Amino acid sequence: MNIPTLDDMLAAHERIKPHIHRTPVLTSRFLDGLTGARLFFKCENFQKAAAFKVRGASNAVFGLNDDEAKSGVATHSSGNHALSLSYAAGRRGIPCHVVMPRTAPQAKKDAVIGYGGRITECEPSTSSREAVFAEVQAQTGADFVHPYNDPRVIAGQGTCSRELLEQVDGLDAVIAPIGGGGMISGTCLTLSNLAPDVEVFAAEPEQADDAYRSFKAGHIIADDAPVTVADGLKVPLKDLTWHFVSNHVTDILTASEQEIIDAMRMIWARMKIVMEPSSAVPLATILKNRERFAGRRIGVIVTGGNVDLDKLPWMNG
Amino acid sequence: MNIPTLDDMLAAHERIKPHIHRTPVLTSRFLDGLTGARLFFKCENFQKAAAFKVRGASNAVFGLNDDEAKSGVATHSSGNHALSLSYAAGRRGIPCHVVMPRTAPQAKKDAVIGYGGRITECEPSTSSREAVFAEVQAQTGADFVHPYNDPRVIAGQGTCSRELLEQVDGLDAVIAPIGGGGMISGTCLTLSNLAPDVEVFAAEPEQADDAYRSFKAGHIIADDAPVTVADGLKVPLKDLTWHFVSNHVTDILTASEQEIIDAMRMIWARMKIVMEPSSAVPLATILKNRERFAGRRIGVIVTGGNVDLDKLPWMNG
Repeated sequence: MNIPTLDDMLAAHERIKPHIHRTPVLTSRFLDGLTGARLFFKCENFQKAAAFKVRGASNAVFGLNDDEAKSGVATHSSGNHALSLSYAAGRRGIPCHVVMPRTAPQAKKDAVIGYGGRITECEPSTSSREAVFAEVQAQTGADFVHPYNDPRVIAGQGTCSRELLEQVDGLDAVIAPIGGGGMISGTCLTLSNLAPDVEVFAAEPEQADDAYRSFKAGHIIADDAPVTVADGLKVPLKDLTWHFVSNHVTDILTASEQEIIDAMRMIWARMKIVMEPSSAVPLATILKNRERFAGRRIGVIVTGGNVDLDKLPWMNG
Repeated sequence: MNIPTLDDMLAAHERIKPHIHRTPVLTSRFLDGLTGARLFFKCENFQKAAAFKVRGASNAVFGLNDDEAKSGVATHSSGNHALSLSYAAGRRGIPCHVVMPRTAPQAKKDAVIGYGGRITECEPSTSSREAVFAEVQAQTGADFVHPYNDPRVIAGQGTCSRELLEQVDGLDAVIAPIGGGGMISGTCLTLSNLAPDVEVFAAEPEQADDAYRSFKAGHIIADDAPVTVADGLKVPLKDLTWHFVSNHVTDILTASEQEIIDAMRMIWARMKIVMEPSSAVPLATILKNRERFAGRRIGVIVTGGNVDLDKLPWMNG
């Protein structure tokens, strides 16, 4: 296991700065009043490709030497990592191969293609995905960039809380959603080194609470096909992210589907920003655990803004 | 006619600074590519009360002496001016009386009440509104703050482009939506004095094109009950705003309902900000008049963010 270090994160930041936005931090007097806390929203929905994942993806892509880079990069994802890796590869002018189930929504395929990614379709099963991905890799020699269980990716995600520390004084805690744990691991990497007194909370949908159950059990537990509106958060922890979660996270808090949807709508209505359901899970858990956050200065990572504007979750039923 | 001056605008800015946000300017490489221009979006959707109108309203409220202020302020509006005046009056701790048709949506009434406004209902006719408003004023002695045809309001709105000039170098033009003309008048006031080479464009729905027709005819023409998704832009010009429009505006451009809705959706999808239909009219007209804007640096006033999240216009039909 190749655990990324503070130096890896600092090197990542220098490497990716020309390719990412230093995203703004927004506040809301209304939400502060409601929670009793001072909330600082780090707006990665305004990031390139509208997702923090462009940090890790850019670090992987621009960290390749010229020889390695020639063959391009590859991943299997139908979400923000696929967009982000396509974006970063496009910036470097190298190919990005994305294996996606043929059943993935056309809008997601179009988005990957829009950022320059090359899609190879597989059947919607793990065995087909693995077989097709192995074939793509064998044919292209592309470098595999895992969506989160990759030290280059974790080091890249860690640059987000480094900026947050520069932008906001005196933080008491940072909270971010947890799926596979890439953002939380990067946050732990940065804060445990640069601001070890700042607590790290992870926020997770009740209906995809594998990280919560892993944290309580002391070992990785994977969900079996979880269903949640926060569709970026369905994937399980892996060894690298478990290392950071088990060593540095203060607690994992969960919220119901309705609580997530209510929090998302509240942020849209009050802060006038478009963000995806996964990004609303932290506020949902803060509202639910008022006593743990009231009176404190809390960084909240708004992880992304890729949402289907035709199907907003509060409009179901 | 009491025409506001540069000094009035500068005094307004000092007066209202503690009560408003200096809103950020956002850019979008995607929209720059699409239009061929460099667009600088001045985000008044992030303003207090989510509307630029808080600038003019705050200037009126905080410009009253203590004696005048005791009786509060009053207006008739069911839109952003009512919210903004309620907000400003609340900051000063004085009453704000708002006359609204009893048929106005409950959500709008709730929003005014949420900002501390006191609603008096009238029938949905001009005669009833005027009669009820006269009664409220007689009973309370409140100071009438017109939504746009008031020099204090125009001077306040002018602070927006003063900030924009400080935030962006080398602007060639500024474009803003036009309804009654308050924002456009403030923009003309500021730019004609501080940056007279910067052109001012007004953007208007085709279906509520009274300002366009007035501009071409050389005198004020009012629409008869216009219907447009850009519901903040239905009101006619008045003498003060006509003064600025007729003397300082370079041109008025119009866009169809579908063009406005498409531009609104594009801004939400690409810039990840929530803004109201009126605020999309400038981009709609820029896309339609590419040759007038390509290669130039254009300030675009995003006027507000108050929109019904349950009824987004691209979801009709």
